[in-house]
Amino acid sequence: MSKSSYIGVFDSGIGGLTVVKAIADSMPNENIIYFGDTAHVPYGTRSKRQITEYVLADVKFLNTFDLKAIVIACNTADSIARAKVEDLYDLPIFGVVDPASKRAAEQTRNGKIGVIATNATVNSGAYDTAIAKYNKDAQVISVACPLFVPLVENGRFSKGDIVIETVAREYLDPLVEKGIDTLVLGCTHYPLLSDVIEGLYPDLQIISSSGAAADTLRQSLEASELVSDTDDSIRKYFVSDDADGFKRQAQVFMGDTLGGDVTQVSLE
Amino acid sequence: MSKSSYIGVFDSGIGGLTVVKAIADSMPNENIIYFGDTAHVPYGTRSKRQITEYVLADVKFLNTFDLKAIVIACNTADSIARAKVEDLYDLPIFGVVDPASKRAAEQTRNGKIGVIATNATVNSGAYDTAIAKYNKDAQVISVACPLFVPLVENGRFSKGDIVIETVAREYLDPLVEKGIDTLVLGCTHYPLLSDVIEGLYPDLQIISSSGAAADTLRQSLEASELVSDTDDSIRKYFVSDDADGFKRQAQVFMGDTLGGDVTQVSLE
Repeated sequence: MSKSSYIGVFDSGIGGLTVVKAIADSMPNENIIYFGDTAHVPYGTRSKRQITEYVLADVKFLNTFDLKAIVIACNTADSIARAKVEDLYDLPIFGVVDPASKRAAEQTRNGKIGVIATNATVNSGAYDTAIAKYNKDAQVISVACPLFVPLVENGRFSKGDIVIETVAREYLDPLVEKGIDTLVLGCTHYPLLSDVIEGLYPDLQIISSSGAAADTLRQSLEASELVSDTDDSIRKYFVSDDADGFKRQAQVFMGDTLGGDVTQVSLE
Repeated sequence: MSKSSYIGVFDSGIGGLTVVKAIADSMPNENIIYFGDTAHVPYGTRSKRQITEYVLADVKFLNTFDLKAIVIACNTADSIARAKVEDLYDLPIFGVVDPASKRAAEQTRNGKIGVIATNATVNSGAYDTAIAKYNKDAQVISVACPLFVPLVENGRFSKGDIVIETVAREYLDPLVEKGIDTLVLGCTHYPLLSDVIEGLYPDLQIISSSGAAADTLRQSLEASELVSDTDDSIRKYFVSDDADGFKRQAQVFMGDTLGGDVTQVSLE
């Protein structure tokens, strides 16, 4: 493991690119391997057993590269299967739930934190546990938002779009009525909804799990003197289904070009 | 193979239950095995290669039972992988695309037929080919409606729901403006949208691929004298992910109770 080793990032599909973007913005010289399990996306509606099986295959693939860290760039995978990954691999494992929980726990003023995520993440209770670790008095109110991922993937994340705004209000009004002052976007697709949510609820403090994860990773790499200092950052993307479909959607999530090739691989 | 042999029905997940419902309404004494590949749902956004791989595993599983017919109760699977299934199995294989195409080709008055389906079904051109077989002068206008499956699965199929009506109008207005008089619901989830679509476009003739498939199956079983005459119809349901999640959603698609147990099986 060296400064130039890869950061291995994985997600059920394309949402994890918001984490890659946050890492690249924060540490532009890093070499990054990304795996998107597009043959099995979405994870958020599946069972724990099934999610764990998919996650272990994802990590096994990433681990064929020279890595200095693994980032679970999917709140569902992190919530359900993180402990199992930590048991099996002797690498620094970073997630999205803990960094976002820490930030929310520190930044809430009234102690009422809303968490929006997939069904699997909400049912796991991972955010409740993690936030309690940093702020035992905080009240966490979670809601599963199963329509957000398909709406985002179909480009419906613009302010003024009656479809996304109607759905967002149905999910979020009950949280706001209960007095939350802080909202965790507990799914790596949701940063694309920031504008819509800020527009509807301008007083809410919004915490992106993608941004929080990148900051935590940077602090850890700095502490262990593993931040890359090369000039030419390498990025390689792998997916388990068709590469073209991934490439077509990628720019929306990266807000930028991918900066590397996309290759289809079979994990089975 | 006998009258009491099972009809094997499969789908990527839960949508195929609209076909089971249509079969049960038409032939209440049939024994039915259903497989829903909920570990890999949805098929409609995946590549041909991946869909074919999943479909072959589905049929292999069904074929462990004593079957008199296989029904591909998923337009995506039928469009992409039907020929491969027919090559490999010496059983009567029924689909959804051909019956719906025949009905649309016969019932259109002005020869302009709209088809709504998943991305994979539309891109396959299966409906264009099948409709041309029955009515070579018909003009087929297809549109992929990727948000319909998640919206239906999240219960958004009521008349007056601004979310489903806005999305439906965006998909369907262009077809109606081009003058279609007949619309094929080319996905087994879409029968649940009949009320919404009829409400928005009362002059359209709507053809459900689920209903057409059940009618074709009945005609064929009658012709080969294989309609069941037992009193106690057996129904068994298998899914590749969590059975409870499937059971929770099933009633919406069946419009009735399942009439049999749901068991989780692993195909891998």
